[in-house]
Amino acid sequence: MKSEFNFLSDLKSKYNLKHIGDDCAVLPMSDRYDLLVTADMLIEDVDFRLEWTTPEFLGHKALAVSLSDIAAMGGSPKWALVSIGIPDSLWKTNFLDRFYSAWHELAQMHGVELVGGDISRAHERVVIDSVVGGEVEKGRAIARSGAKIGNAIFVTGFLGAAAAGLNLLENGQRFDPSMSTIIRHLLLRQLQPLPQVRTSILLQKYNLATSMLDVSDGLSSDLTHILRASNVGASLLSKHIPIDPATAGFPQGEPLKFALHGGEDYELLFTVEKENIPKAKDLGFHHIGEITPNIGVIEISNGNETSILEPKGYRHF
Amino acid sequence: MKSEFNFLSDLKSKYNLKHIGDDCAVLPMSDRYDLLVTADMLIEDVDFRLEWTTPEFLGHKALAVSLSDIAAMGGSPKWALVSIGIPDSLWKTNFLDRFYSAWHELAQMHGVELVGGDISRAHERVVIDSVVGGEVEKGRAIARSGAKIGNAIFVTGFLGAAAAGLNLLENGQRFDPSMSTIIRHLLLRQLQPLPQVRTSILLQKYNLATSMLDVSDGLSSDLTHILRASNVGASLLSKHIPIDPATAGFPQGEPLKFALHGGEDYELLFTVEKENIPKAKDLGFHHIGEITPNIGVIEISNGNETSILEPKGYRHF
Repeated sequence: MKSEFNFLSDLKSKYNLKHIGDDCAVLPMSDRYDLLVTADMLIEDVDFRLEWTTPEFLGHKALAVSLSDIAAMGGSPKWALVSIGIPDSLWKTNFLDRFYSAWHELAQMHGVELVGGDISRAHERVVIDSVVGGEVEKGRAIARSGAKIGNAIFVTGFLGAAAAGLNLLENGQRFDPSMSTIIRHLLLRQLQPLPQVRTSILLQKYNLATSMLDVSDGLSSDLTHILRASNVGASLLSKHIPIDPATAGFPQGEPLKFALHGGEDYELLFTVEKENIPKAKDLGFHHIGEITPNIGVIEISNGNETSILEPKGYRHF
Repeated sequence: MKSEFNFLSDLKSKYNLKHIGDDCAVLPMSDRYDLLVTADMLIEDVDFRLEWTTPEFLGHKALAVSLSDIAAMGGSPKWALVSIGIPDSLWKTNFLDRFYSAWHELAQMHGVELVGGDISRAHERVVIDSVVGGEVEKGRAIARSGAKIGNAIFVTGFLGAAAAGLNLLENGQRFDPSMSTIIRHLLLRQLQPLPQVRTSILLQKYNLATSMLDVSDGLSSDLTHILRASNVGASLLSKHIPIDPATAGFPQGEPLKFALHGGEDYELLFTVEKENIPKAKDLGFHHIGEITPNIGVIEISNGNETSILEPKGYRHF
């Protein structure tokens, strides 16, 4: 069956679309700024389950995933639209009040204003489309296609906790105030992710990233997106992958798998010129590997042997 | 139960939202232009039925409704995002190819580029969120709130055909090439509406409209939106309502009801200063009434007697 990725690239070539395929569209806006726009659709029982989350977490996450796309391009979010379809049963409750209350809390934190959207009746399931618009200095949007051979590969923070949290939810764990700090952390990384908006602005200030995206599908899949867009390869050292320490209670090997393939951590994955490695390290980012000429291929070494890391991760189809 | 309209105005006052409540958000963009953005969510079995339409009509209409919102503000559409959730059963067919093919035909006609969106798996039903961005000369977006007492009320074209088409669909009529020209016209006004993008540009050229929106919910409802936003009232002459002649085969009285309450014709409803009445008439627009001081109230006269026209029309909840 055709994948979503293939469908989009077919569309792109069939209709000669120039602005599709990165985290955001980059459009001319003024002499000083380019406009960034991104849309993310979240469907109940595909992207979230109401039994696992709360209206507040859902409102937060719906905005967070789109803010993360703006951050992934090096931009600043400015405005948003939310379209939501909800069944009658929820319309009668305080679901929407709680959803929008948390949505606004995150929006205000980043100076984002709700400027429109749509509210509709749906049948059985909730559906949300989150659209965020932002700005970036003209010509300074950071695409996936800028990685060069010899560049170093960095991530902004720990990986794997969101996947570990999903694993706990799948195994019946629910968010409740009496749980341990570690379990709470893992569930919150899944249910209430923090987009790296300010980190991205910092990266832009130092002009560090040559390519960038956010870790939404999983490191192996997202790095592959950079490699394909940039026509390069990558080599990683597994001991340098910043596995979230809160995943340590899982069976041996699982935390690394969560970090490599889990997705939804919404950290930024980016490449820098060799001479900027010290600067990126000083800022606290994690140096995980190098860009190679081996187009589309990720090699991963555990110190003794090197294997090929296949992209795995979240795919809708 | 709280209506969608009330929910939005609650949100607006609760969070002090300045850009919500018109057909589009109007946002600062450059020294010369303001940015317009609008979102419309279409949900299967709420906003459309797959048995009544085709993937092509649906692709066309998904874009048309949002283009119409841009036209309603006096803007020019420039780019669009489409988020679509479809069940596996349709993913396996050529549904999306047909949907996007018609979407693009309409987009190209208006110089609109697809710049992003999302494709997701859905459960039983198709859901579409259509977002369009456009431009308008700085300060020249036409809001609902600009109608003044004594202004004349105009519509750009015939009303009622889309509602008549819906009535035929509800009664089992399906689109088929052998049907009569009249039936074809009525069904197409419902299934494949034409947004008044160029008409809006013409209105802007002559600086005619003091307030404007598109007839999507129905003339009585949409005019009420203008009256409430402008703190005015309206009086209409029923014989001046431009009822689509193709509805003449319906029982007496039905065509006027379609025209007054039916919605989805996507003609523009606008007000003009008294001295611009001849110009608006010259351009072929229909003069249907006047703005009065009777806040929020529509009076309608049949020549002999005057009654109050209650807003009826499409409401999701």
